[in-house]
Amino acid sequence: MEHEENGFSESIAGVAGLQCSAGSIGIKRSGANDAALFILPEKAGYAGVFTTNQFRSACVDSAIARLHAGKQIQAVLITSGNANAGTGLKGRADTEMLAATVAEEIGCCADEVIVLHTGVIGVPLHAERLLPAVAALVSERSASPEAGIAAAKAMMTTDTVSKTALRSGEIHGVTGTVAGVAKGAGMIHPRLATMLSVLVTDFSVHPLALQAALTRAMPTSFNAISIDGDTSPNDSVILLSAQAGADSITPMIQQGSAAYEQFCVMLTTVCEDLAKLIVRDGEGATKFIEIVVKGAASAEDADRIASTVATSPLVKTAFYGEDFNPGRIISAVGRSGAALDLEHMTIAIGGIPVYSEGNFLSVDADMAHFVMTPTDITVEIDVAVGDVSLRFFTCDLTHGYVRINGEYTT
Amino acid sequence: MEHEENGFSESIAGVAGLQCSAGSIGIKRSGANDAALFILPEKAGYAGVFTTNQFRSACVDSAIARLHAGKQIQAVLITSGNANAGTGLKGRADTEMLAATVAEEIGCCADEVIVLHTGVIGVPLHAERLLPAVAALVSERSASPEAGIAAAKAMMTTDTVSKTALRSGEIHGVTGTVAGVAKGAGMIHPRLATMLSVLVTDFSVHPLALQAALTRAMPTSFNAISIDGDTSPNDSVILLSAQAGADSITPMIQQGSAAYEQFCVMLTTVCEDLAKLIVRDGEGATKFIEIVVKGAASAEDADRIASTVATSPLVKTAFYGEDFNPGRIISAVGRSGAALDLEHMTIAIGGIPVYSEGNFLSVDADMAHFVMTPTDITVEIDVAVGDVSLRFFTCDLTHGYVRINGEYTT
Repeated sequence: MEHEENGFSESIAGVAGLQCSAGSIGIKRSGANDAALFILPEKAGYAGVFTTNQFRSACVDSAIARLHAGKQIQAVLITSGNANAGTGLKGRADTEMLAATVAEEIGCCADEVIVLHTGVIGVPLHAERLLPAVAALVSERSASPEAGIAAAKAMMTTDTVSKTALRSGEIHGVTGTVAGVAKGAGMIHPRLATMLSVLVTDFSVHPLALQAALTRAMPTSFNAISIDGDTSPNDSVILLSAQAGADSITPMIQQGSAAYEQFCVMLTTVCEDLAKLIVRDGEGATKFIEIVVKGAASAEDADRIASTVATSPLVKTAFYGEDFNPGRIISAVGRSGAALDLEHMTIAIGGIPVYSEGNFLSVDADMAHFVMTPTDITVEIDVAVGDVSLRFFTCDLTHGYVRINGEYTT
Repeated sequence: MEHEENGFSESIAGVAGLQCSAGSIGIKRSGANDAALFILPEKAGYAGVFTTNQFRSACVDSAIARLHAGKQIQAVLITSGNANAGTGLKGRADTEMLAATVAEEIGCCADEVIVLHTGVIGVPLHAERLLPAVAALVSERSASPEAGIAAAKAMMTTDTVSKTALRSGEIHGVTGTVAGVAKGAGMIHPRLATMLSVLVTDFSVHPLALQAALTRAMPTSFNAISIDGDTSPNDSVILLSAQAGADSITPMIQQGSAAYEQFCVMLTTVCEDLAKLIVRDGEGATKFIEIVVKGAASAEDADRIASTVATSPLVKTAFYGEDFNPGRIISAVGRSGAALDLEHMTIAIGGIPVYSEGNFLSVDADMAHFVMTPTDITVEIDVAVGDVSLRFFTCDLTHGYVRINGEYTT
């Protein structure tokens, strides 16, 4: 789906002191850029959330080890073209070798550098051949907006547009910024639905508050989207707070403070913007579908309803075909396993009520056409048993998706 | 996928005394056959399993009420073109009206007739307009093989072939038969993945043993298949034991007996044959994929692994594209939530090992082509934590599926 210009296309370099770099380090045979580097002005507070897939890339193990050890982070290297997953002990050594090379160039420890990979699964990375180019990448770093934009582009695989979001605001009387970049669903070679996101802020945030803020931003953003229901061994979201040290220029933001609440709003907005950009650019997508669940008995039930509807091939193909078919939506709700009151449940598509009091409502062909033709369509489902609400975002299932993921054989 | 002639295309009328009928009763505007009727020589023992979808057709409520009341059944009417779901109290009255009409014609009670519907959701059935044609359908019943074949065909919606399976064998010194018909994934109008199956036997089976035998047949047959992961409000499998009454010609088969074990083998085989026929005829399918899970910690885990792999759009499109991509399979296994030993887990595709001891094995392009090109492909996954095995059947996700379910707008 063509990405509409909506003001998100800023540069992550808007965060004070952040330097970026992009280049080809020799993973992609085409010579296309396959590495993005983000270097902070000093060691930064670090929070992260990672794939729940038990089959994990070496880079996820490495990033989690740093998180558990309470490390501060000075740089993030993202490489695309090879996921370094299913590659055993050599894979882990490859990730650490890349981190050590970046660390040596910028003068920090290897465990203060995070390396994330995205790309084909099960192929050895042979990192030793990449090291000279990685050193060159560090030397080319720049704080220019163009460098930030180039880095966001270097993360792309089957993405058709780069994804950056940014929000600035005043906390403790100082204007700061929360910014992020992301790559979305799809890779060239294994074409696995994969997302990576790096978020940075020049606000100073206490380490515990940083992880709490990131965890709080997830349910309405990266955990509220689905392209095809698949998850990858590499999915990672990391958040770096650039001035969390003792020499911070603003008071450190603590959990429970008004400043923390302000920070959470900015962070959550940036994450939601990136998540929606990922869905809009989903493989083969022609529609952006917002699912609003209301009246659920619990957050788990709301998620179950939304994700069952969002991953139903029958619902997704109906939206692709602009086929007005509320029966498929209610069938997905019915099999979700969530508590429902079928007699009092209501469903609306594009603001038009289509089901209430146990019956489908009469919708004529003109109205059905009117609700199904827009690019953006909202489905509201009120299951009438509780008071929990949730927003979820998905796209349609199209010939483009089947082509991208099926037709090009390796 | 073209159905290969494999000897299953028998007539359900092979069961002693069974009479069948097929015709148009006025639901499908095209005038195509939209009703199939199965009449037993006397009241029969009745067992059934039904959709787990909370949103259920009136016909499922009606069939479950008869099961809970311990009713014996003399006839089954199946109509296609209208699911009679989301139609409120009038919908339930419509189902009962059809049952009463059949009952009156054959001389039994209305609650000794089961009526099942398949078709579009949320459209009133207006059964009163169908009653004269239903009465005519009863009068045209016949025990001929052709009548059984016609009835199996009248159940079809987007099915491309009719589905009948039959096994005969000797129990208690008497040769009897277990036979069944089914309709598979897809409907013309709402195109909802929907299955219905009617199974009959001329063996005499105790009512408790009958339900136990049907429940036992499910895990390896109708519960071991997936087309697209969606379930309908109408899914039903019913089993009628034609001579379960006091005047049975053979001793009644009781649970725990050797005869019961023999009956279970025949019944399970018939169910498995029908389930495989449904998958082979899945909407748009070009591949029949058998997933064999071994070494699972529990039956739940084995099912979780198999169904996650079988419903993964990335796995299914890779098979469509004949793209050798074991990374997608292991990623699906990894997100299944089941207990795994990633170090000792093994995966084979088409008998060729592709993953073991934490590493992907080298498979050259010729071998990859060799394993991906057959129509029937087996994937073996041994997760190396327990001793539970499971077979599961699915098909690929194709342009044909997207076309059938998305392109034809209503």
